Amino acid sequence: MGKLLAVGSMAFDAIETPFGKTDKILGGAAPYIGLAASQFDIDIAVVSVVGEDFPEKYLSMLRDRNIDLSAVEIVKGGKTFFWSGKYHNDLNSRDTIETQLNVLGDFTPVVPEHYKDADVVMLGNLHPNTQLSVIEQMEKKPKLIVLDTMNFWMNNTWDELMTVISRVDVITINDEEARQLTNEYSLVKAAQKIRQMGPEYIVIKKGEHGALLFHEDNVFFAPALPLEEVFDPTGAGDTFAGAFSGYIAATRDVSFHNMKNAVIYGSNLASFCVEKFGTERMQKLSKDEIQKRLLQFKELTQFEIELT
Amino acid sequence: MGKLLAVGSMAFDAIETPFGKTDKILGGAAPYIGLAASQFDIDIAVVSVVGEDFPEKYLSMLRDRNIDLSAVEIVKGGKTFFWSGKYHNDLNSRDTIETQLNVLGDFTPVVPEHYKDADVVMLGNLHPNTQLSVIEQMEKKPKLIVLDTMNFWMNNTWDELMTVISRVDVITINDEEARQLTNEYSLVKAAQKIRQMGPEYIVIKKGEHGALLFHEDNVFFAPALPLEEVFDPTGAGDTFAGAFSGYIAATRDVSFHNMKNAVIYGSNLASFCVEKFGTERMQKLSKDEIQKRLLQFKELTQFEIELT
Repeated sequence: MGKLLAVGSMAFDAIETPFGKTDKILGGAAPYIGLAASQFDIDIAVVSVVGEDFPEKYLSMLRDRNIDLSAVEIVKGGKTFFWSGKYHNDLNSRDTIETQLNVLGDFTPVVPEHYKDADVVMLGNLHPNTQLSVIEQMEKKPKLIVLDTMNFWMNNTWDELMTVISRVDVITINDEEARQLTNEYSLVKAAQKIRQMGPEYIVIKKGEHGALLFHEDNVFFAPALPLEEVFDPTGAGDTFAGAFSGYIAATRDVSFHNMKNAVIYGSNLASFCVEKFGTERMQKLSKDEIQKRLLQFKELTQFEIELT
Repeated sequence: MGKLLAVGSMAFDAIETPFGKTDKILGGAAPYIGLAASQFDIDIAVVSVVGEDFPEKYLSMLRDRNIDLSAVEIVKGGKTFFWSGKYHNDLNSRDTIETQLNVLGDFTPVVPEHYKDADVVMLGNLHPNTQLSVIEQMEKKPKLIVLDTMNFWMNNTWDELMTVISRVDVITINDEEARQLTNEYSLVKAAQKIRQMGPEYIVIKKGEHGALLFHEDNVFFAPALPLEEVFDPTGAGDTFAGAFSGYIAATRDVSFHNMKNAVIYGSNLASFCVEKFGTERMQKLSKDEIQKRLLQFKELTQFEIELT
């Protein structure tokens, strides 16, 4: 069975969208990655940190999905990372209202012994040095290392970010971040420049406009499923990354051909994530629903024209 | 052989993009529609109007592509419609600098006798009454009537626009216009509302983000080809519409299945149009190049996941 190691934040989120407002709910990259990846038949462990205030029910919900949480540190007397944000009316942009790093500020990830030979390593958005530390603890070179990051690290820790980028196989990044990282407006040119930084595969996420996968001279596009209503975009990118890395871990096939399928699964699971607040939809998602939606993705994209 | 009747403006355009600036060049919906549609094996006629200042070389260029121009009125002493515009740096938006309607202000379209039984009628962006007049001159109900329009007519001739919309089978419209027409942000909901206005098929063009085709509960998505450089977006929408209607006229198959192919050809030809200023690229486009790009569209979108 394929083995996935994921590192990422665990958090309380307080979210406001045009459709409503939440109190502190489960957030952070790791729960989204874990919930998505655990839809595939793999062994999965999460490396993260929480405070003593983190509810046991969240941990047991993740454990019930066979996610190994032995490397989630619980800091005595510590407080869990907190983020609150408010989305604009079009849901394409948001303002961060508050960020409290709390225990995440001193996070030193420790990779469990039995995951030092993981097939796939998913580095969720964190300080580049934290991500690098996970890579360096691996005893066996993973088949695939996937990195997610954001503009904050480009602005504040450029050199560290360049170091970790040079060590990974795949980067997932959104369109604005790809432009910022490369000073190129064209995503085709941006992907070319990012490839020179290290990753052989570049996934550029465009939110409601889908995602592009670049490799050498090849490009593949996975649309977002057109939805009547997007309720809360929080976690869609992490869900995408979790499904992507979970699918690769399950298939242990890192060819471009198979990675196309991985981005389709990424887009598939992300389309569920945005239907409810936070992780709510992902907690109730069934394999059967995913398969039905896969059929919708086929109908959305597949055509038959004879080449003359 | 399938027969296509297209009505649309013929114009002088003066275009400024971040990459350069043109003098008055050939523009208007009809040349783009005609150049795109004439790539298919069909009979095609254009209904339009120009002034005495319109260069014969433009007309002969179109005639050389077997486009019947017998219904292009040349108004003695009249001046051709003129538009000038400047694109913003991201090429996604533009400002109109000047519009001189000139002979287009009094345009009364006359459908040629031998095109009153056309299979497909493509109504390029014009006053809704002008578009309606073309429909009413048809002696045989066409297999398909396709309408293009824009926000200007929504703002100024709402009732006339609703009348012509109720008479067509397909509408092609961009995302912002679909939202304005329906007051719905979600394009899925917007398409549902537009369907209630008349058209069974709704094509929503999203520029660099591709195009959606809606019919009943079905939706199909044609991506835009990711390009290193977009040089000038002028005419991309008309080129899309021309290829769409040309392909339907050539195949005379108005099923949803075949319309998927039509939007892929629309996206295919539009991807060439933006590579040069104005109609320049479309004038030199070969069938072989289109077939090669079709292969790129397949590689961009086709995947193989077994449904379990």
